[in-house]
Amino acid sequence: MLKALEKRTIFFISGNTAITAETMGMALLSQFDQIRFDRITLPFVNTVEKAKKTVGRINEVSREAGRLPVVFSTLVDEEVRKLIMGSDCEFIDFFDAFLGPLEKILGKRSAHAVGRYHGLEDFDEYDSRVEAISYALGSDDGVSTKKYDEADVILLGVSRTGKTPVCLYLAFHYGVHAANYPLTEENLEAIHTEAPPVLVPHRKKLCGLTINPERLEQIRARRRPGSRYASFAQCRTEIVRAEAIFASLKLPFFNVTSKSMEEIAVAVLDTMHLPRR
Amino acid sequence: MLKALEKRTIFFISGNTAITAETMGMALLSQFDQIRFDRITLPFVNTVEKAKKTVGRINEVSREAGRLPVVFSTLVDEEVRKLIMGSDCEFIDFFDAFLGPLEKILGKRSAHAVGRYHGLEDFDEYDSRVEAISYALGSDDGVSTKKYDEADVILLGVSRTGKTPVCLYLAFHYGVHAANYPLTEENLEAIHTEAPPVLVPHRKKLCGLTINPERLEQIRARRRPGSRYASFAQCRTEIVRAEAIFASLKLPFFNVTSKSMEEIAVAVLDTMHLPRR
Repeated sequence: MLKALEKRTIFFISGNTAITAETMGMALLSQFDQIRFDRITLPFVNTVEKAKKTVGRINEVSREAGRLPVVFSTLVDEEVRKLIMGSDCEFIDFFDAFLGPLEKILGKRSAHAVGRYHGLEDFDEYDSRVEAISYALGSDDGVSTKKYDEADVILLGVSRTGKTPVCLYLAFHYGVHAANYPLTEENLEAIHTEAPPVLVPHRKKLCGLTINPERLEQIRARRRPGSRYASFAQCRTEIVRAEAIFASLKLPFFNVTSKSMEEIAVAVLDTMHLPRR
Repeated sequence: MLKALEKRTIFFISGNTAITAETMGMALLSQFDQIRFDRITLPFVNTVEKAKKTVGRINEVSREAGRLPVVFSTLVDEEVRKLIMGSDCEFIDFFDAFLGPLEKILGKRSAHAVGRYHGLEDFDEYDSRVEAISYALGSDDGVSTKKYDEADVILLGVSRTGKTPVCLYLAFHYGVHAANYPLTEENLEAIHTEAPPVLVPHRKKLCGLTINPERLEQIRARRRPGSRYASFAQCRTEIVRAEAIFASLKLPFFNVTSKSMEEIAVAVLDTMHLPRR
């Protein structure tokens, strides 16, 4: 008989978005696979009133579970922090552990200000991200090939290799102008082992995405079940041709099958030496 | 005369994407505004060979700068970690400080495995994110209003209030089905203070975005300089009408002017009690 997994409630609490607390906390928790974590994120805990409400919620969870929940905090406001620390919890503060040592290393006092990192730095940064997202949307699936001039990178791949999500991720998080060029059946027929003419001037920006045919079949079958498009034979043929193109053009390429979108995006960024804006 | 800001080189080093190291490191560095940081991210440092190359690079920076760079690490591989620790740097490891205490709190040993968090958890997770992104793209700007049935949230706002980026962010990071409904000039004329008929059945999913007219003018002027669309008078009129609609429908709404996309997305998530998938 399977033993039920132990459960533990985890709070991510911050005066701003709690994205840092979640990211860091989840990275730590991913190292413990024998426990099921119930996760509660409480962003914008930035007043004493909200802190008191939060304490009530933590104490209630603690009472009901009969054990202390874990609180991952990036709280900076001293008063709020003290209130939460006083609740029935195991309190782990991510800033506390490092700001002291960092102050020593850098020889400066830290600002202790809330919401610095995921807040709005300046309008230019916001505008350039919006612009990069518009760019990715506007040049998606090769609709606007004249835009390739402005591209930092152009992803090539057959349908459903994750080109669009990866382009959007690169735009959102790094302000990169990421375009994509779909290797459709017609394209694959036409270009064989030469770069499509529209891409020839941009050869150094090209990066391929490929995938295992079994996985591609699975993804396509969800979209168009029973179609030729989703058949294993078709998936395999397209992939073999795409990879032949990558090889003959000597393009860098990645197999995305067992990768998350973040991993693919960072691999593209790293390999193509793209700027992180 | 302005004193030149002190400079310091920061490395973010990880065996996988380095997203956690960057997120946590940037959050900490944002508390020190008297220093200019040159940031170098080195993801996928997952072999002894790559570690040795990395050590060479760190030592070179150290020699050139005449002071130790700071390394923020989420390295888990012991051999790689020891090599990097031995380089000429101030080494701060984000896992090290917390895994010990967490093991005690949770009463379990940690797995010490690389790339757990930003790696691929399972195909279902990947597929549902791709699906949410397709959903956001397919229901952008109200093109497919029949899709509102499947929406978790529907953002309302005049042109250029950040609806699309926020919808994409919610899809990407939380798997939320976020649609948007543009309050175009015609819509604003027609609906006055009633919900557009297509949205009536979805009233509880509606959330407004607004913005200061000065900022909207600035954003629109970049897109269509000198146009009526970008004029201050037009921006103000549209915003006044949009806010009147939010008020009369008693919709929750946010002013995005001084907010980052992350802050808007998390505020929407929090206020609308959306699931984090």
